[in-house]
Amino acid sequence: MSLEDDLIARYFAPLAGAGGLGLRDDAALLAPPAGSELVVTVDALSAGIHFFATDAPEAIARKALRVNISDLAAKGAEPLGFLLALALPKQGEAIIDDTWLQRFARALGEDAAYYRIPLVGGDTISTPGPLMLSVTAFGHVPAGGMIRRDGAKPGDRVYVSGTIGDAALGLAVRFGGKETWLASMSGNRLAQLRSRYLEPQPRLALAPVVREFASASMDVSDGLAGDFAKLMRVSGCAGVINLAQVPLSDAAQAAVALDASLVERVVTGGDDYEVLCTVAEQNALAFEQCALEAGVQVTMIGAVHAGAGVEFFDEQGQPVTFSRMAYSHI
Amino acid sequence: MSLEDDLIARYFAPLAGAGGLGLRDDAALLAPPAGSELVVTVDALSAGIHFFATDAPEAIARKALRVNISDLAAKGAEPLGFLLALALPKQGEAIIDDTWLQRFARALGEDAAYYRIPLVGGDTISTPGPLMLSVTAFGHVPAGGMIRRDGAKPGDRVYVSGTIGDAALGLAVRFGGKETWLASMSGNRLAQLRSRYLEPQPRLALAPVVREFASASMDVSDGLAGDFAKLMRVSGCAGVINLAQVPLSDAAQAAVALDASLVERVVTGGDDYEVLCTVAEQNALAFEQCALEAGVQVTMIGAVHAGAGVEFFDEQGQPVTFSRMAYSHI
Repeated sequence: MSLEDDLIARYFAPLAGAGGLGLRDDAALLAPPAGSELVVTVDALSAGIHFFATDAPEAIARKALRVNISDLAAKGAEPLGFLLALALPKQGEAIIDDTWLQRFARALGEDAAYYRIPLVGGDTISTPGPLMLSVTAFGHVPAGGMIRRDGAKPGDRVYVSGTIGDAALGLAVRFGGKETWLASMSGNRLAQLRSRYLEPQPRLALAPVVREFASASMDVSDGLAGDFAKLMRVSGCAGVINLAQVPLSDAAQAAVALDASLVERVVTGGDDYEVLCTVAEQNALAFEQCALEAGVQVTMIGAVHAGAGVEFFDEQGQPVTFSRMAYSHI
Repeated sequence: MSLEDDLIARYFAPLAGAGGLGLRDDAALLAPPAGSELVVTVDALSAGIHFFATDAPEAIARKALRVNISDLAAKGAEPLGFLLALALPKQGEAIIDDTWLQRFARALGEDAAYYRIPLVGGDTISTPGPLMLSVTAFGHVPAGGMIRRDGAKPGDRVYVSGTIGDAALGLAVRFGGKETWLASMSGNRLAQLRSRYLEPQPRLALAPVVREFASASMDVSDGLAGDFAKLMRVSGCAGVINLAQVPLSDAAQAAVALDASLVERVVTGGDDYEVLCTVAEQNALAFEQCALEAGVQVTMIGAVHAGAGVEFFDEQGQPVTFSRMAYSHI
């Protein structure tokens, strides 16, 4: 299949990096630095599931690219390029016209430049269904340098970047439901939460710090609680998280102050795209220091133990259980 | 987003290559051989456009992977691995249940083993729309060794692998229309054409031969005529194809004998997934010899000239024009 020539020439060729050969070939060429390994990841997004068909094209472009950059960051990888597969609906609520494509491509190009991850190729097809995007992102690490999920060891500390729960609460803002807390929040804070849902902020600046200090790492996409459980299961360890230490933004704190039950949504709601990693105790201070220098806030929220399973404790040291551990898009 | 854990563990983890880390990580790891460059390509396929929702899951799996392998082959690349993004419909004509997934994964695994291209990762999502697949394939070439579309030179000969037009005619068989020729063909020949549409045969065995001898190369997916025009345009050359030399299978010959107008469908219909390449005149014999040794039939069908544009001639040397040059999936 080929990209539709008009679409490429007009909207996507201007975004192409050197390896993309002007997007006029069947394939793209990547030359990772000598001695490096390639880290590859793919994330697909469908209208009606991962975003709303009527979301701004800029937000859709940013989300599709950034959720993949978030995976690279969590693996300690430096970006190398990406491929975009775009399935454009023939009909539907959102009209995909020249203006839409222009806005989508411009936002994608801005992000590609900002994160230094050039578009190297892609495929555009039409679909009788909703808009769908699949982004494959490439990064590189020094050979053996990728931080996997399975490296956590008993005694390690558990860290998370940024703040947790904003996107999950932002989804409620986006839905515009009738929950009491929504009515009591300021417009400014609601906008902050909504923006975190619509436009993830991948922690690419943290990638070299993760690579240097983390024993295991992943990004939080399906909810902190469930993703932490995965990290521990794959590492063959047990783990605890102290909920009082989980970093919340001012807006999320305000929401939880209005409705304490939102804590569950904060730690299981997902779409955070923060880095969740474990660090050996003797590296913890250096990790915190380097993260600070990279401009990314990291917070110690728990610890790794021998055994299996994960536990969550509240401020009073009481165990907390959740009705579900993670948000599933399936 | 994460692959749904159950789906991975049951159906896809058994297919994973070493770089896939058991599909239990955010990303996969690829280590191309030292001194090589990475060739990457992505093709998306949607039910209702590229295949029928009710096609056998085996055929869908094979088509999705093979159209990508075909791109690698045309670039002269050796396979390294692939990623699969799978969007599963919540409803629709074709029921995606355990049996479907089992059959799909088994066929995908057989192809991955046959073409030595391990599954290294993926993403499974649900969609309110039709089944959609996006495969990203990775290959490697010695540095500088990828054969691009833009290298054809005046004086080069034009070659195509295998036979042309079977898939385009096979689509008519699949549709089961009322065309006269369909009624006059044997069941065996109709089955051959249909099979070429459903299950492309990528010419991976030709990859090293293309790499050694071709000046420019691409795979024929949108129709020989249109794809040849692209190859010449990107190379900045003019080209001619002698239609009488275009290789047809017995089945396609029988169809054209019944209805001469099918020639246009043969050369513009697409879905051939054969290699179309140009070879300098002094390399032509060696190219033919090595292709033969690799077990792939190649046929000289034309020549490259200085200038711009492409022309097609019939057996009598008369120019032939087509109402459209290529089949567009858009």
